[in-house]
Amino acid sequence: MIDMEFIENGSVTSVPGFQAAGVTAGFKKSGAPDFALVFSEHPASFAGVFTSCTFAAAPVLLGREKVLKGGTLRAFAINSGNANACTGAQGLENARKSCEIAAEKLGIPASDVVVASTGRIGVQMDMSLIEKGFDLAVPALSAQGGNDAARAIMTTDTVPKAVAVKVKINGVDVTIGAMTKGAGMIDPKLIAPHATMLCCIATDACADNGTLASMLLPCAQDSFNRITVDGDMSTNDTVILMANGKSGVKVLPGSSEYETLRQALLSVMQKLAREMVMDGEGATKFVTVKVVNARSDADAKLAAEAVANSVLCKTAWFGNDPNWGRVVAALGYSGAEFDPAKCNIYYDETPVVRDGGDAGTPESDLLDVVKKREFVITCDFGGGSGEYWVWSSDLSHEYVTINADYHT
Amino acid sequence: MIDMEFIENGSVTSVPGFQAAGVTAGFKKSGAPDFALVFSEHPASFAGVFTSCTFAAAPVLLGREKVLKGGTLRAFAINSGNANACTGAQGLENARKSCEIAAEKLGIPASDVVVASTGRIGVQMDMSLIEKGFDLAVPALSAQGGNDAARAIMTTDTVPKAVAVKVKINGVDVTIGAMTKGAGMIDPKLIAPHATMLCCIATDACADNGTLASMLLPCAQDSFNRITVDGDMSTNDTVILMANGKSGVKVLPGSSEYETLRQALLSVMQKLAREMVMDGEGATKFVTVKVVNARSDADAKLAAEAVANSVLCKTAWFGNDPNWGRVVAALGYSGAEFDPAKCNIYYDETPVVRDGGDAGTPESDLLDVVKKREFVITCDFGGGSGEYWVWSSDLSHEYVTINADYHT
Repeated sequence: MIDMEFIENGSVTSVPGFQAAGVTAGFKKSGAPDFALVFSEHPASFAGVFTSCTFAAAPVLLGREKVLKGGTLRAFAINSGNANACTGAQGLENARKSCEIAAEKLGIPASDVVVASTGRIGVQMDMSLIEKGFDLAVPALSAQGGNDAARAIMTTDTVPKAVAVKVKINGVDVTIGAMTKGAGMIDPKLIAPHATMLCCIATDACADNGTLASMLLPCAQDSFNRITVDGDMSTNDTVILMANGKSGVKVLPGSSEYETLRQALLSVMQKLAREMVMDGEGATKFVTVKVVNARSDADAKLAAEAVANSVLCKTAWFGNDPNWGRVVAALGYSGAEFDPAKCNIYYDETPVVRDGGDAGTPESDLLDVVKKREFVITCDFGGGSGEYWVWSSDLSHEYVTINADYHT
Repeated sequence: MIDMEFIENGSVTSVPGFQAAGVTAGFKKSGAPDFALVFSEHPASFAGVFTSCTFAAAPVLLGREKVLKGGTLRAFAINSGNANACTGAQGLENARKSCEIAAEKLGIPASDVVVASTGRIGVQMDMSLIEKGFDLAVPALSAQGGNDAARAIMTTDTVPKAVAVKVKINGVDVTIGAMTKGAGMIDPKLIAPHATMLCCIATDACADNGTLASMLLPCAQDSFNRITVDGDMSTNDTVILMANGKSGVKVLPGSSEYETLRQALLSVMQKLAREMVMDGEGATKFVTVKVVNARSDADAKLAAEAVANSVLCKTAWFGNDPNWGRVVAALGYSGAEFDPAKCNIYYDETPVVRDGGDAGTPESDLLDVVKKREFVITCDFGGGSGEYWVWSSDLSHEYVTINADYHT
């Protein structure tokens, strides 16, 4: 166990040496805040993971380039309302130009800036809005601005998502603060150095780029890569981790400091991942789908993801319907190899399926579970040690309303 | 071109030598017809394809066994309201018993009977209802009963689906009649001799089991296996093709007769497949997703199926939203390899994406297409000769209502 505590109203600016701002540049017609800037007072080491979508957005292409090139990072700017995706050479040029504008207004090298975008796909960026964004955000930067920034990156999110923890390493407090956004087009498969979830994580631990990278991808695999709202991966998913070293706590791979920081980072990323699913478009349920005793972890993953993404399962959850027939159907078509006759299924601790058939539990007991806001479906294949879990939401009328009417 | 015509109000009993009935045995609480029987006056050769779901239902296990064993077929009985899936040894025994009851009441060998079931998963069959089904259906069998049978196999279908064609082979009329059902849990991946769509096809062509099998699977691959309503494959999908030879037209593999019959069979199966998507749960749109000039057919299939199953694309279609960003996102995460910069997309004939970016077509022109009940999305990868198409429906409020409230 690590000695860790969550900071009340924590955010990226809970980390000493980081400033942030959230302003209204005009990308959103609603007039809501739509431009966020996170600034490190000192050059920070960094790592990034990005969407594996073939149609990766311009800022993603640029972000990958920067991760591969290495060096330090000072600023991470995010606009909401235009994804700068499918915008070709001009889109890429505009993303580069955004870095240059940031550099000029902040007095730092352009190579120390990473940008990210979310919103409508296929529309060229209005650069005057980017200019306005920096004009407003730079003077607004403050050590209290983390929650404003978290608000400015929202799209269909109903609540901002920010968190910070303090973890003791060698008796010293190390802080990790983070913000994320994303409620739809959520099924990130973040790959390195290649996630429309956007996430910015800051820490005052002292670690080089390689160390941060070695920590970030596995943590993404056990957090953001395990969530799904609609099974649609985005063109813009981006997670950036920055470390300014201000705590003086050196973190080297293989050390106990590394392990403690990794666990704290994972806690932060899992908390944000949970919040994204909880705030999934139209979501009324938070369902953990867990597959255990599978032939392999890969088989368990296939099976868990099939159930988590099944439109029939998700509508049943919305309807408080214990319908396990839809769960077994999804397991059956998942591609996982298992013996149906050995399959047991539980809703929380309540047996649903025993040896591939009805466990005989009274329907009312199953209803008690599926009526809850949050429950766990465990599928035990009884034939190995493979395991995997996924966090999913239900599919509601509200989801259809949001996505039939909302024009990204 | 083959000389083929559709028969008005055609059904399985448009085929000489076939009788059918649809009755109310009591499986459905509504009191609607729920038991269908198709009977061949003469021993018929046959072929079958079934779901590839690991949790295949008892009648599917039995049907596969019968297909492997070969011989002839006289009767195909289908109940709607209980899937006899996940019912273990007793379920299998009940399916066997159903064949025996049919045999006894029809005066034929039990080995000449195949049964299929659709409805709730995980409930043991009430055999008294099966008994009642045969008691009512056997005396009701008639050469006019095809449409009654088609009505009796419906679940959430809003219309019965039956069709028949006459095709001239060597100057002789050969008839193919068929019925199908299925509106939800529709994403069949029929494999041989292993498809909750249920389909019965009858013909008076004269062909042995092997010949029928060699024709049925490719036709399934180009019809039922290309449709999706919700991306959820069923435990019970079954297609049975019976040929009683009554036309006297001999059909041997590699012959021109074979090719003509195959084309007519494909027409029948494609018509039923289209009708299933048109009648998909809550569907208001029929969308063909076509990928062309891909690196391979397999890549084209990955890409087309990703778009066809994307919850975000399907809700956009419901909302008459031309949102091509969701299409490119789905292509991008499909796993297909292609160069985004060479990708062109069309809604019907209207350019939407050119070279990976906005084609500049006025939004109103795109709206004109996506407002239609039926349109085609063509994605041209510009890098090979691989092709694939899929038929899909939209995802509406009605879909959520049906599946959050309907307890299978």
